[in-house]
Amino acid sequence: MPDKIVINHATVRERADMLSFIALCAERGLEAVSIWGDEIDKVGEAEASKALAEAGLEVFGYNRIGPFDEAHLARAEAELERAARFEADHVFVFTGGLAPGERDLAAARSQCEATIAELLSIARRAGVKLALEPLHPMLFGDRTLLASLREANDLCDRLGEGIGLVVDVYHVWWDPQLRAEIERAGRAGRILGFHVNDWLVPTRHLLKDRGMMGDGVIDLPGIDRMVRDAGYRGPIEVEIFSDAWWQRDPAEVIDTAIARCRSIFPDACANEGALT
Amino acid sequence: MPDKIVINHATVRERADMLSFIALCAERGLEAVSIWGDEIDKVGEAEASKALAEAGLEVFGYNRIGPFDEAHLARAEAELERAARFEADHVFVFTGGLAPGERDLAAARSQCEATIAELLSIARRAGVKLALEPLHPMLFGDRTLLASLREANDLCDRLGEGIGLVVDVYHVWWDPQLRAEIERAGRAGRILGFHVNDWLVPTRHLLKDRGMMGDGVIDLPGIDRMVRDAGYRGPIEVEIFSDAWWQRDPAEVIDTAIARCRSIFPDACANEGALT
Repeated sequence: MPDKIVINHATVRERADMLSFIALCAERGLEAVSIWGDEIDKVGEAEASKALAEAGLEVFGYNRIGPFDEAHLARAEAELERAARFEADHVFVFTGGLAPGERDLAAARSQCEATIAELLSIARRAGVKLALEPLHPMLFGDRTLLASLREANDLCDRLGEGIGLVVDVYHVWWDPQLRAEIERAGRAGRILGFHVNDWLVPTRHLLKDRGMMGDGVIDLPGIDRMVRDAGYRGPIEVEIFSDAWWQRDPAEVIDTAIARCRSIFPDACANEGALT
Repeated sequence: MPDKIVINHATVRERADMLSFIALCAERGLEAVSIWGDEIDKVGEAEASKALAEAGLEVFGYNRIGPFDEAHLARAEAELERAARFEADHVFVFTGGLAPGERDLAAARSQCEATIAELLSIARRAGVKLALEPLHPMLFGDRTLLASLREANDLCDRLGEGIGLVVDVYHVWWDPQLRAEIERAGRAGRILGFHVNDWLVPTRHLLKDRGMMGDGVIDLPGIDRMVRDAGYRGPIEVEIFSDAWWQRDPAEVIDTAIARCRSIFPDACANEGALT
């Protein structure tokens, strides 16, 4: 029986295009993948869809809407409709950072919320869920305007149905409010995904030095318990942005990720059945 | 009349020893400096004390107690007594990161608090105040166990008299609870210092890529207002860890820092009188 492990294509994207990535996941008996719109563009939507169907793979996460500049927002509706055609479980919202010259965080956050509200109404029409993923505070300003689970929960509370959040250990492991905010998200039934990787000490690059699970200092079983205790029953998604792992053979990377997940999350990987 | 600007020696430490640093600050009419114990060691305590006295410079911040390993904790009493001899306004607590193999953050945080409580009783005997400085979450695990103003306030609430906190814009500018936690610290009368620098986009290194005030995206006047509104009346301390600035002439760095402070914080630099 397959494990409830999902690989995010970004983990191997430097050396595996979407079709190769799909084949690698299918060969290992995985049930679903998380994919990227720009990688669909490279191989063509028809080819990508056909490969997924033939491999019997569902789409878990779809990356992504954003950043919030004019060019990307103009494409949001088309992107959300494409995500719906791929029957993605959820579509990531990537806010991007501050506009050039912007320093007023209250204004930037307010504008960001207004944009998410607009995207949500499009997503509801398209029939897909939006996923907020708070990123690490070191990416605030440059890549995101949303850097805590608390804000993600606050936003979801205000925005209503059709939007939830994803817990990525890399971004939130340090947060003293981690357990409380995971519990809060769980009570609201809005935990859409659980991303794993690891925090290396020292970390040498803000974007491309994530670790393989087990190679860093994050208490992965502890956060997994928090997420499960909060009611999450979905898969574990492996998402590693790493120059070191990108250089390696994609098959080896995926095999290592699966082996680490089985070792670190034995309960979550114990054949709990199909995707929720 | 001198400005209420304090330069932290770390800003120029690669090319100016403590005696040169003192001379540079004195020549510019500054009233106080923030210093480092390891830099005192290099020139000798007698020489360092004499230079400060002759320059008429007070000591604002004293760096530092920690990291919390056996070797450093064994020296804590001597370090705090030395800080008292230098009549430092406050002494920084530098927790350091996780012990090797430690992943249990609740246990690590609890041990950290116990250590700070012990240091506080020594500091009270020595007659110096301790300053908690929450560092940026990207340094959590490696360099600190304290990465939010909220935790610093919580710790101070529990530990009682003789301990406060320092607001360093670099570490906290992104925090959605920034204003609330600064107000809370102000109400408790525990804001001991206000450190300025800037966040560069993109940031290329986790430790050594801070910007000069005005070169990044932090709303410096906005945070200055928060701190002043919360009742802080002390100096603005410039602390920039930057390979780029460390390579430049220390006099040029200090002159640039003073000019930027006068331009960005005109009210705070408007001859408000002596150090509080």
